[in-house]
Amino acid sequence: MIGNFTYNTPTKLYFGKDAVKDLPAVVGKYGRNVLMTYGGGSIKKIGLYDRVKDLLKDFHIVELSGIEPNPKYDPSVLEGARLCKENDIDVILSVGGGSVLDCSKAISVCAKYDGEGWDLISGKVKATAAVPIVDIITLAATGSEYDMGCVISNTAINDKRGYLDELMYPVASFLDPEYTYSVNKWQTACGTADAINHVLEQFFASPHSMFNDGVMISALRSLMTNVKIALEDPNDYAARSELMYVCSWGCNGILANGAGYSGWPMHSIEHALSAYFDITHGAGLAIITPRWMQEILSEKTVERFVTLGTQLFGFDKNLPDSEIAQKVIDGFYAFFESIGIPMHLGELGVKAEAIDEMADHILENDNTNEPWMYAPIGKDALVRILTASM
Amino acid sequence: MIGNFTYNTPTKLYFGKDAVKDLPAVVGKYGRNVLMTYGGGSIKKIGLYDRVKDLLKDFHIVELSGIEPNPKYDPSVLEGARLCKENDIDVILSVGGGSVLDCSKAISVCAKYDGEGWDLISGKVKATAAVPIVDIITLAATGSEYDMGCVISNTAINDKRGYLDELMYPVASFLDPEYTYSVNKWQTACGTADAINHVLEQFFASPHSMFNDGVMISALRSLMTNVKIALEDPNDYAARSELMYVCSWGCNGILANGAGYSGWPMHSIEHALSAYFDITHGAGLAIITPRWMQEILSEKTVERFVTLGTQLFGFDKNLPDSEIAQKVIDGFYAFFESIGIPMHLGELGVKAEAIDEMADHILENDNTNEPWMYAPIGKDALVRILTASM
Repeated sequence: MIGNFTYNTPTKLYFGKDAVKDLPAVVGKYGRNVLMTYGGGSIKKIGLYDRVKDLLKDFHIVELSGIEPNPKYDPSVLEGARLCKENDIDVILSVGGGSVLDCSKAISVCAKYDGEGWDLISGKVKATAAVPIVDIITLAATGSEYDMGCVISNTAINDKRGYLDELMYPVASFLDPEYTYSVNKWQTACGTADAINHVLEQFFASPHSMFNDGVMISALRSLMTNVKIALEDPNDYAARSELMYVCSWGCNGILANGAGYSGWPMHSIEHALSAYFDITHGAGLAIITPRWMQEILSEKTVERFVTLGTQLFGFDKNLPDSEIAQKVIDGFYAFFESIGIPMHLGELGVKAEAIDEMADHILENDNTNEPWMYAPIGKDALVRILTASM
Repeated sequence: MIGNFTYNTPTKLYFGKDAVKDLPAVVGKYGRNVLMTYGGGSIKKIGLYDRVKDLLKDFHIVELSGIEPNPKYDPSVLEGARLCKENDIDVILSVGGGSVLDCSKAISVCAKYDGEGWDLISGKVKATAAVPIVDIITLAATGSEYDMGCVISNTAINDKRGYLDELMYPVASFLDPEYTYSVNKWQTACGTADAINHVLEQFFASPHSMFNDGVMISALRSLMTNVKIALEDPNDYAARSELMYVCSWGCNGILANGAGYSGWPMHSIEHALSAYFDITHGAGLAIITPRWMQEILSEKTVERFVTLGTQLFGFDKNLPDSEIAQKVIDGFYAFFESIGIPMHLGELGVKAEAIDEMADHILENDNTNEPWMYAPIGKDALVRILTASM
């Protein structure tokens, strides 16, 4: 069954080899004063920085560089908002991965707000305006290029928040798979793990439908197959193009319209982990995934595991449901391990002593135990998941 | 591989039980003068007419009723355009199936054009403005509620044209599966056949990708399974909701972004059939489908059949490719027959004498023999397909 929903993603996708050639026409619709945001030097190494500067040579470009992974409210968002206000910026051009884009989204609303920007991000105040965002995405991972969300860390208060607002849909996203050739094995694996988790957060929900199940299983199959090809041959266009396209479907709801909202519990857990230990988002999600699955496996949820087991992994449907479920959990563990993700949080620097405090933090900030959730998880369950993940 | 593409569907979907409750707020965004378009009396029988009039009691509503299946340029489009101009219409509200909506789309551009409207529809002149369109769709079939196309017949010159323009995307589409409970078996079967054909027109294209293949196969599986449930129990919400949702994915490209454009040859053939004999679109497509498949089966195309055979029909992948292909063709024939579609054009009133003229008409209007097409078909092939379909 397809339940009630509303859906609209207004972002226009420009996908493929040299898609960025249309950049001047697209950016020019919004004005000439551009805030160009980016991270470290990777866009310079791959020639994209020069290409953009050349394409936009007739524009006035202000730059904000050095945006960090797990982008920070202070300094990056605050600095970007200040630059927008001081330079009368018409459009933000985000060039990089999901972190740069998430930061740019937060900048876009904070730039149009006179109070403390964190009040918007933490949901205290509703934004009323935003600077339009165009992006060139260089990492297949978060799907931020096709959604209205961002995740911002506020290190001063150990907080990491997912923040949604329709104002933050990019007006246009450029996706050229060739710009992901230089993404290293670790980032390729972690980006794919992130996208796989986005699908799973939506797959474990209710009601289900034959169509959405098939779409999500197709997404998982494509991600799990093509990441192995891309790890083997980073310049395989077919694999990189599928990874890039499928990742962009991750977070805007289209994978599971009408399926209800699961609450994205694995993301709630991971946000605490990376707020406390600044670990790589996709790695954290990959490690949590099988442990979360083990915790929520029940008579109610086993049907979801059986669907994954038979349709994605091709397990024999005549096996007992519980056996299929266990094979699915073990299958994801083995898959993540096979693409090079260490499957223990300790290896990423997470300390077991922080588990109790993190569990409290998760419950306080993300309500993983609400009765409307597909599989609510309280303090004890959170502690078990985190402990098993160590 | 995902090839180059641009994609954007700006339409907002309002899906589910009583979704129309939001109609006043949505229509009100565009103004108070509404042209309400509909067909025969079916929307009155199901109570939708009264519901809309009650919801919009504070609006000024001009009505255009009697829009026919295979909507006609003259009188419907011309009359609608005249009403828009005379009444200073702010927004068109289409209430009905794909024919009413297609007609409304044509009206929306003709209302803003001072010359002969057929010049827009036949592609001679590019439209520059359109009246915004909101729709309530009452038939799961064409996907017109989520695309920028319409198909209009000009009986004076035996022509039926598919016409695309970004200006014609509905701004909002309301989809309540309960409004399809009263759709009879024939229309339910033909609407689903239409949607199945939309998927196949995109599946037989190049390049392919693992992800798109999976999405399209999921769409086909859902349509083929749920139509049987809906034919058995017309009030099965789960089945009606899947049919309605999947149909809406049919024509806006999202099923096969980056897959290249096949040219939609089966639609080209069917447009001639219904221009000459005013047959039901979905029935015509169902009859043509296996004959078209038989004609284009070749070393180049056999891989598409094998993918359908193994993934959709579950045929043994160890069988010879040619055998799988034949089983797929026979499988679609048997499926359409099983949902009550007579599999011979003669039974719909098509005359064999017209085949030669129709083949010429198709080549003249739709270019089914272009070298860029996935499987070009010339005059001889068209005659073979039509003859086999009799």
